[in-house]
Amino acid sequence: MVYHHNSLVNFSVAVFKKMGCPDNQARLAAKVLIDADLKGIDSHGIARLPGYVRLWEKDRINSNPEVKVVYETPSTAVVDGDRGLGLVVAPEAMKVAIKKAETAGTGWVSVRNSNHYGIAGYHALMAVEKDMVGISMTNASPLVAPTFSAERLLGTNPIAVAIPALNQPPFVADFATTTVANGKLEISKRKGQPIPTGWAQDAHGNPSTSASCVEEGGALVPLGGTRELGSHKGYCLGSIVDIFSAVFSGANYGPWVPPFVSFLEPSSDPVGKGIGHFFGAMRIDAFRPAEEFKAEMDRWINRIRDSKPAEGEQQVLIPGDPERAAHKTRMSEGIPLLPAVIDNLNRLSMEFNVNAPSPIA
Amino acid sequence: MVYHHNSLVNFSVAVFKKMGCPDNQARLAAKVLIDADLKGIDSHGIARLPGYVRLWEKDRINSNPEVKVVYETPSTAVVDGDRGLGLVVAPEAMKVAIKKAETAGTGWVSVRNSNHYGIAGYHALMAVEKDMVGISMTNASPLVAPTFSAERLLGTNPIAVAIPALNQPPFVADFATTTVANGKLEISKRKGQPIPTGWAQDAHGNPSTSASCVEEGGALVPLGGTRELGSHKGYCLGSIVDIFSAVFSGANYGPWVPPFVSFLEPSSDPVGKGIGHFFGAMRIDAFRPAEEFKAEMDRWINRIRDSKPAEGEQQVLIPGDPERAAHKTRMSEGIPLLPAVIDNLNRLSMEFNVNAPSPIA
Repeated sequence: MVYHHNSLVNFSVAVFKKMGCPDNQARLAAKVLIDADLKGIDSHGIARLPGYVRLWEKDRINSNPEVKVVYETPSTAVVDGDRGLGLVVAPEAMKVAIKKAETAGTGWVSVRNSNHYGIAGYHALMAVEKDMVGISMTNASPLVAPTFSAERLLGTNPIAVAIPALNQPPFVADFATTTVANGKLEISKRKGQPIPTGWAQDAHGNPSTSASCVEEGGALVPLGGTRELGSHKGYCLGSIVDIFSAVFSGANYGPWVPPFVSFLEPSSDPVGKGIGHFFGAMRIDAFRPAEEFKAEMDRWINRIRDSKPAEGEQQVLIPGDPERAAHKTRMSEGIPLLPAVIDNLNRLSMEFNVNAPSPIA
Repeated sequence: MVYHHNSLVNFSVAVFKKMGCPDNQARLAAKVLIDADLKGIDSHGIARLPGYVRLWEKDRINSNPEVKVVYETPSTAVVDGDRGLGLVVAPEAMKVAIKKAETAGTGWVSVRNSNHYGIAGYHALMAVEKDMVGISMTNASPLVAPTFSAERLLGTNPIAVAIPALNQPPFVADFATTTVANGKLEISKRKGQPIPTGWAQDAHGNPSTSASCVEEGGALVPLGGTRELGSHKGYCLGSIVDIFSAVFSGANYGPWVPPFVSFLEPSSDPVGKGIGHFFGAMRIDAFRPAEEFKAEMDRWINRIRDSKPAEGEQQVLIPGDPERAAHKTRMSEGIPLLPAVIDNLNRLSMEFNVNAPSPIA
């Protein structure tokens, strides 16, 4: 079944308000959430709405947080998210980074005491509207084993970087620092297929091709996949995200990061507050006149997009292209949801006495 | 044969001075160069000295550059390297980033008109001595095909991030944004061995296991190795390095980056000046008191280092550990050089009439 995005936004706003979110925060959270569905990143969209609700029910999310700057210099700040929805805390923190950049040239904000923040790219793109480069990263609950380790110590810790161009759409990189996210294993499992070597390892730390290996005590592996293909580099990236997001801010890091799912309890011995994010905004005219920079970006993008494709490929993509294509289609044709997701939304609808979204097809 | 590091430093200083480098710049360049040998990164050490000389002979390196800031805001600057040795330009630019961070909290410097800068990690570590996080990246001549492309459009574009700790040595990530560097293919070729799938592709853009595929018109591939294992993420990383290093500064980017080797001519239609670098320095006390941050870093490091190793592994490593181990050994036991490298140094010795380094064993 397919839904108009406004219908999903309105439903999410209604649910967030029932949780006690002020109207403006409920609207912001819903906008960030459904932006994932519009861009085809279904794992981070409305499918997660029940997850946020369950965490709020356990008092692990504060639906009316006072997000505030607790430490700062001309180009930096630490923001305390007051246990709020990451969907609200993150855009607020990115605004602080942008404001710092307006006067200092760049702004860098580390955030503690937050929760899952949706898609990293949403926050990075906020900077692009201001002719800035935007950077967004977050740590996440431990599912990933560092190279040579048998233990889950890091999250999928994504990084997004958004860079404005002139006539071309912006360059938007947005990726987990693992080979794949857990969702890909779930898809293989449902299909009864093995996974490729380099996606995950078993409980002893050996490479595994079983789609169930992570739930059986194994772990996802860092980008690179195997030592031979450079998994230590993905381990470096995931670590940097963890440190910038949590050691700078005083959030939990590594294996102490609280789980997103409500049925797993957070550590009884936390090393910080909530989960952590890190944001950067760099004014492009802090380096050279903005029009000049953007014209060069057009040339950079065109040269790569127009390069000779590998055998069997149609065209070389620029980071951001697939999400833009999905956005275009879903804005006009609607957002398809899986039956299991729809069931969960119907359950929320009854629980909170709000109208369930109606499909358009 | 094995050489004392001072002997290699002194020889390099003598050669750089014969090229016309002022004494202080010759010493700085030699220190950066031999730091690679000490850390076991042989591909970036004294083996490259003849390469710098050949570029200078072709007037592609200015041995007495005036490195200067050409554009700035409180937290940013663009530095023009005046065609100098990257070994000199990069530390000068990093000093600018550190100085900006002292007042603004962070400092970010994009560099144009430079050359190969040695190991990325050297420059990042300069910040650690000042209780700052250091970031260093550079673009490089095109050897890498973006995902889906058959063309070489990006360099191996390394990233280094150095983060201070308290009683633990610093976290130092320093890695190319490809699966491997070209040197690994050369080693396989010398041994007559195939390379693993995911290291490189042939001239049509198909994955290749031939160690000669790059020289036969193929390309290295981005970190991830194959589309299935996430090579588009490595492509994102290499692109970000290219854009921050060159589009911010006005250096050459993508396929226009001039080659390091003197027998390949630079583009007759450049899009900028020289190659580009990008540096960042973030004062840790711009986020929280420095001692607090460093104590948490110790805990972060200890938790990961002490985690359960994967089957068959001894211990989980922290980024920087392998280079520190090599440094310790080579400081005491000397630096081993291959016969081909020694021959090249002997040739330089005769050419410039300076004493060749004498082996200690």
